[in-house]
Amino acid sequence: MASLTSRLEHAIKPDALRAYLAEFISTFLFVFAAVGSAVASSEFVLWVFFSPSHCNFFFFKIFVIVIFVYFYWVLRNVGVQIAEKMMPDATTDPSALVAVAVANAFALSVAVYIAANVSGGHVNPAVTFGMAVGGHISVPMAIFYWISQLLASVMACLLFKVTTVSQHIPTHGIQQEMTGFGASVLEGLMTFTLVYTFYAARDPRRGPLGAIGPLVIGLVSGANVLASGPFTGGSMNPAYSFGSALIGWRFKNQAVYWIGPLIGAGLASVVYDNVVFAVQIADGIGV
Amino acid sequence: MASLTSRLEHAIKPDALRAYLAEFISTFLFVFAAVGSAVASSEFVLWVFFSPSHCNFFFFKIFVIVIFVYFYWVLRNVGVQIAEKMMPDATTDPSALVAVAVANAFALSVAVYIAANVSGGHVNPAVTFGMAVGGHISVPMAIFYWISQLLASVMACLLFKVTTVSQHIPTHGIQQEMTGFGASVLEGLMTFTLVYTFYAARDPRRGPLGAIGPLVIGLVSGANVLASGPFTGGSMNPAYSFGSALIGWRFKNQAVYWIGPLIGAGLASVVYDNVVFAVQIADGIGV
Amino acid sequence: MASLTSRLEHAIKPDALRAYLAEFISTFLFVFAAVGSAVASSEFVLWVFFSPSHCNFFFFKIFVIVIFVYFYWVLRNVGVQIAEKMMPDATTDPSALVAVAVANAFALSVAVYIAANVSGGHVNPAVTFGMAVGGHISVPMAIFYWISQLLASVMACLLFKVTTVSQHIPTHGIQQEMTGFGASVLEGLMTFTLVYTFYAARDPRRGPLGAIGPLVIGLVSGANVLASGPFTGGSMNPAYSFGSALIGWRFKNQAVYWIGPLIGAGLASVVYDNVVFAVQIADGIGV
Amino acid sequence: MASLTSRLEHAIKPDALRAYLAEFISTFLFVFAAVGSAVASSEFVLWVFFSPSHCNFFFFKIFVIVIFVYFYWVLRNVGVQIAEKMMPDATTDPSALVAVAVANAFALSVAVYIAANVSGGHVNPAVTFGMAVGGHISVPMAIFYWISQLLASVMACLLFKVTTVSQHIPTHGIQQEMTGFGASVLEGLMTFTLVYTFYAARDPRRGPLGAIGPLVIGLVSGANVLASGPFTGGSMNPAYSFGSALIGWRFKNQAVYWIGPLIGAGLASVVYDNVVFAVQIADGIGV
Repeated sequence: MASLTSRLEHAIKPDALRAYLAEFISTFLFVFAAVGSAVASSEFVLWVFFSPSHCNFFFFKIFVIVIFVYFYWVLRNVGVQIAEKMMPDATTDPSALVAVAVANAFALSVAVYIAANVSGGHVNPAVTFGMAVGGHISVPMAIFYWISQLLASVMACLLFKVTTVSQHIPTHGIQQEMTGFGASVLEGLMTFTLVYTFYAARDPRRGPLGAIGPLVIGLVSGANVLASGPFTGGSMNPAYSFGSALIGWRFKNQAVYWIGPLIGAGLASVVYDNVVFAVQIADGIGV
Repeated sequence: MASLTSRLEHAIKPDALRAYLAEFISTFLFVFAAVGSAVASSEFVLWVFFSPSHCNFFFFKIFVIVIFVYFYWVLRNVGVQIAEKMMPDATTDPSALVAVAVANAFALSVAVYIAANVSGGHVNPAVTFGMAVGGHISVPMAIFYWISQLLASVMACLLFKVTTVSQHIPTHGIQQEMTGFGASVLEGLMTFTLVYTFYAARDPRRGPLGAIGPLVIGLVSGANVLASGPFTGGSMNPAYSFGSALIGWRFKNQAVYWIGPLIGAGLASVVYDNVVFAVQIADGIGV
Repeated sequence: MASLTSRLEHAIKPDALRAYLAEFISTFLFVFAAVGSAVASSEFVLWVFFSPSHCNFFFFKIFVIVIFVYFYWVLRNVGVQIAEKMMPDATTDPSALVAVAVANAFALSVAVYIAANVSGGHVNPAVTFGMAVGGHISVPMAIFYWISQLLASVMACLLFKVTTVSQHIPTHGIQQEMTGFGASVLEGLMTFTLVYTFYAARDPRRGPLGAIGPLVIGLVSGANVLASGPFTGGSMNPAYSFGSALIGWRFKNQAVYWIGPLIGAGLASVVYDNVVFAVQIADGIGV
Repeated sequence: MASLTSRLEHAIKPDALRAYLAEFISTFLFVFAAVGSAVASSEFVLWVFFSPSHCNFFFFKIFVIVIFVYFYWVLRNVGVQIAEKMMPDATTDPSALVAVAVANAFALSVAVYIAANVSGGHVNPAVTFGMAVGGHISVPMAIFYWISQLLASVMACLLFKVTTVSQHIPTHGIQQEMTGFGASVLEGLMTFTLVYTFYAARDPRRGPLGAIGPLVIGLVSGANVLASGPFTGGSMNPAYSFGSALIGWRFKNQAVYWIGPLIGAGLASVVYDNVVFAVQIADGIGV
């Protein structure tokens, strides 16, 4: 409808600038908590060796002696493949998985909530892409959204690394037996459910249910992390994957976290807007 | 009231077709997260043998030597009964139980939410059965709902298995000391509470409380999984049990997950509609 | 105001009977999930001895040999005091604590929700007592509420025990170093916060915040369980404590779970109704 | 606008006094659950030595013999630095981290909820400071808010310590490798997100989303604890840090928990009120 010039003008008006700032803050908040919880959980992975309260405490003294001999040898030789796989995910035991999933769910709920009325609360380039496919945001604005999101993600990872003096920022990685195609499909499926839920949450026809929209968006993210944690890490968010990959400097399989989510988001947008769009059944909950 | 023909016609109108699609998507989302979290947690059950960060790390080197000797022997001989029971449930330690329960609660909330205004958000053949008993959905439509739900469940399990290259899809199983009758009663009780909550959540007389209906439905599911995880797995959903049984090809005790939930759902429908129906006490919360 | 007779008549009218049924169902649901999650978590406490996936797996074979010699001896002699303390609570490791607390929070939210418009959703004799102190429920009705709640709690524990063939129903117990007085104060403090929250949630002046009332009541219960799990078990509910004590046949310290909560509930009722009652500050959230 | 005298008069009117009481109760509830969950989780850290159900159970008997020789020696000599670091945080394994984070999230949601209409539900000197910076509360009232919050925090820690006969109240501490500056930045960042969310939640322009405001405030707190648990403990609340430091008598790094949060809160107040203030985009969720 509008010409490219007017669209560009609209994309740099104060309202739009505020929306970018809101996206920045929300994405920062989300990535900070998500990457932070992954680091916090993986802390324990190393910490366990020095902890007197674990089951090897009984052998603690003897352990201290042999630890310096075996530690590097095992970790760098026999254990290297295992360690490689374990470190990045930080989801190698069920309670770390719960910690990461709950952090994702809580932080995404909040991030969407605080930006909802200002920028729509995308927090995720895939969501912005889905919105652009559905025509709910102009392409120039979408590009600025992407820039804000990527910047915020990189900043969050960097600040976390600097303030906590962490040697290691966990990046998303896929399980060894999985193919890149399978991982893309998995991430795509999960992003489909996320963006579909996003569409459902912002639909004004949902009546009073609209009030819990941001919560539900957080919950779907948490559920997906619980389902896919040990397999692909459950990113569903190219900005998050990019930020942690840049700061952790590990770009292996980065494409998986862009191709899958973008296709899934576009598909969700098409399905929601065209297939499930104008339907209203009187028997629904809360209507 | 309506003749069978008109009911059938109603059951294949665009609105109804969209409702089936919504049921499909919602059930897919739920089963994907539920079965995924069960797989993700059970990953650790095997993973622990190769993990250098667990308490046996200290013995890691010696462990590597003996593992090949003992592993198959113990697991297949002495440990076989134990393993049989442990693998399917993936709820053999409290944090895996929490992971599975939280995934169930989060995913069911979302699944009900995104389908609420389109199909009512049943996501569960037992709920559809309860609705049919109460006359809130016609029998032909209920059958199509069942088909959508079963298809979605099978698809979710299949896609998860294929993309993650999992050798094992966990199926619901009952604890060895329990009888099939006891398990059916347990599943029936829990489905009763689930369907009763479902009725309460969709009751328009609940006023502003209607807004959190989908959340509450998810919570009751999560609470029940926490209570029954090690005993019956806490399915309350024949479609979920059927899908994982088909892909995991393990139909032992499958009847438990149909008989209990269907009876419980029918009972909840009768109790809610006839006994607790038209009551309103002014002193209630949120009124 | 009303004579005793008219009050008694009011207490057996259909509306009141339905309220008792609603209390029964809600309390049943809550106690079932609460006691169930405690059993489910404590399952692991014994299960660990036979589990090949734990850190002692490496010693599994040798373990099988010595287990029959040491097990009863240690558990009955040296370990008896420890075991006594550990079994009842089922909260002897942080993830079991999380499981029990989350089950409490989820189940109480649901229990309050589904009974909210019918009976007010007390689910707890202490809450009913607080309501009676505040004059929001007549004494005869309160007595019938108590009967419904106690019956439901006993039924839930019994049914859980029978269907799962559990030898052990966990009862609330206090930590050895604690005095009965200290435990009563702790339970009383927590019940104060629970009943205060209950009052806040049912206050119509809370505006749109009323919609999340049942959730918040569940959350305060979960938070209190997390804080007091290893000390008193975090009951805050005489009916729950009584039901599990009756079926588990262990009445030690039962008084703690009646005196503390009833005093705390009465106090909360007085404080809320008389001190914080009619205040409205325009600057509040959601106003 | 108003003179200092009239402001002081306003600060001791009945409405204001009730607000202070509400702040007291809410802060008490929050700190009680937060510090309690930290104690409850750290219980296990010591408890594990005497527990027959852990992996060292197999060695339980022999363990009993050597425990008295090694315990004090290791804990006081080799393990002292480790123990120092581990005890205060009580977040040395992922499930304890989850327990503490969930308790924080649940308790803060409830604390904000029950005080929302009376005092605004600050529960946190940093939030009160942010509100004072934004001019939403007068300075004299803010001082009384601070006094209420600090008193409540000290009381909660004291009562918890006395009733549970705990030798140890965990205080917030920072990881050894971190600098005080880095820790302040981390706490400041997290308090920024908390106070920003607080502002968003109380903004009447948020429409139906206002209903879940207190929940979202709790969630951001929980997410931040999950991200920062092993690093700074994730306080974001000077009153909480001060109360536990006073009762635990350990003031090391106390300044970190005042400087960071106050700067972060002031910044959030300025950013929200001046930059993101009057923006409304029609495309937002729930609008």
